[in-house]
Amino acid sequence: MDAPVSFLDQLFSQGILHDSGVDGLYARSGMFEDVISRFEEFALGFGKDEITEAMVFPPGMPLSDFETSGYMKNFPQLAGTVHAFCGNDHDHMGLLQCVAAGEDWTDKQKATDVALTPAACYPLYPILSKRGPLNADGAYVALQSYCFRHEPSKDPARMQMFRQREYVRVGSADQAMAFRETWKQRGQEMMQILELPHEVEVANDPFFGRAGKMMGASQREQELKFELVVPVNSTSRPTACMSFNYHMDNFGKAWNIRQADGSAAHTACVGFGLERIALALFRHHGFDVEAWPSGVRSALWG
Amino acid sequence: MDAPVSFLDQLFSQGILHDSGVDGLYARSGMFEDVISRFEEFALGFGKDEITEAMVFPPGMPLSDFETSGYMKNFPQLAGTVHAFCGNDHDHMGLLQCVAAGEDWTDKQKATDVALTPAACYPLYPILSKRGPLNADGAYVALQSYCFRHEPSKDPARMQMFRQREYVRVGSADQAMAFRETWKQRGQEMMQILELPHEVEVANDPFFGRAGKMMGASQREQELKFELVVPVNSTSRPTACMSFNYHMDNFGKAWNIRQADGSAAHTACVGFGLERIALALFRHHGFDVEAWPSGVRSALWG
Repeated sequence: MDAPVSFLDQLFSQGILHDSGVDGLYARSGMFEDVISRFEEFALGFGKDEITEAMVFPPGMPLSDFETSGYMKNFPQLAGTVHAFCGNDHDHMGLLQCVAAGEDWTDKQKATDVALTPAACYPLYPILSKRGPLNADGAYVALQSYCFRHEPSKDPARMQMFRQREYVRVGSADQAMAFRETWKQRGQEMMQILELPHEVEVANDPFFGRAGKMMGASQREQELKFELVVPVNSTSRPTACMSFNYHMDNFGKAWNIRQADGSAAHTACVGFGLERIALALFRHHGFDVEAWPSGVRSALWG
Repeated sequence: MDAPVSFLDQLFSQGILHDSGVDGLYARSGMFEDVISRFEEFALGFGKDEITEAMVFPPGMPLSDFETSGYMKNFPQLAGTVHAFCGNDHDHMGLLQCVAAGEDWTDKQKATDVALTPAACYPLYPILSKRGPLNADGAYVALQSYCFRHEPSKDPARMQMFRQREYVRVGSADQAMAFRETWKQRGQEMMQILELPHEVEVANDPFFGRAGKMMGASQREQELKFELVVPVNSTSRPTACMSFNYHMDNFGKAWNIRQADGSAAHTACVGFGLERIALALFRHHGFDVEAWPSGVRSALWG
């Protein structure tokens, strides 16, 4: 009996994704991209009047802000920093000799002041900080970014480079909590319209190391993070396609974002894993988008 | 007398781009992104029936393919490689001590098997190569990618992270050359419709070092590269917003892409610098898109 074909191999053979030879790094077909664009349009139909501003970030952010975020404390294993050649003609000859001999040349690369963005909302906070104290309405930003996480995997829902669309609420604790509860409901409503089986559950981030285990437990206990999960690559281990996060005033303090009364702002975000949602749609509705259920088609293609 | 306000500062004060503190790394406003999306739609109206396939790449590509491309030979100063923490709990404590002391922690990062994509068409060639010899029609691919070039600058048209939309022709020398000539004409037609002042000129890539000067001169002499330039940041030094490149069979040989008769494929590409074109539109038609000339508005917003 033949081994079952993995979902990833099916995506390759159907031409939905193209293999690059590196796990988690795939070219997207025009069709896959169209599904993502349509989902983004669909998502923007929810809460449109609440959004005060839209931004799109490049895939990298300043290394100094990345340091401020504390990401290297919490998730060093997932982070990516960008390094470059900074030598002269002579150094370049040495580099080319290494390349020609099949030796490692990358240890001569020096860090630039760019880190790959690990979570789509991180570049927002320093921008808001520079604007000075918030007014009573706070901020409500729609954003999108490529993110990088160094976790090569054969699970197509665990890419190294992927896009998150996020809505971020910055203001008082009440504003942040209310926002998160609203989006927990909306997220489920969206998944119902898209006819995807889903559940919302309390979750924790994959904090690094022994100390990280305790941080994860504490995050769960305080119910700071919820995920909406959908079976994508596996039915026994469903994939987080959305997350609903309350950061308390951690980012407000780290980046000095102030409320009108001078206290540190509270933040919350809802993140949509765009590639994961597209994959969930292909998994549950098939590889031929023309044959998707009519309700799903009309939600996405109008 | 006040110093004139730079174009970059105008973009910041108008909220078209947002400063990150690192030159060449900017958040894009929703309006800026809308202009880019509209331009991409507009561009897809040209040569639509010729395209055989569409792909979108993530911002990184396999390091091994990046090595094959010869980029480190030609443009080492512009390349970015992605590095990550690969240590244990003990190493992590050392890292955090470095961060806390304000010392350099990045020299402990190790190269991953991902390089940032330097030019949008590079990830395409290994994918085509794996498919075996081309048929007589060759390939005609529409693609898009974020690219990275390590050249921090106050010129907003010289970003470190930016998007290229490209059309790539792979086949015989005649097919590649005919494609490039067609797009040289189409590019000018597009700029006329968008009412942007422009010129097409022979150009060369910024090859590294002393040997690179000769390579640039040879590239010019053979007229392998043309650029469509538009004044964006400066009238005396206009910006390349499109490029029209014939690579001969260099990439066909490097990645073993074969024509039907077994000989190495020839390739040509036309690249649109999406951020540069958006900036050119803002520069020439003003910061208020509602007030752009009616011909430009109808070309972009229909």
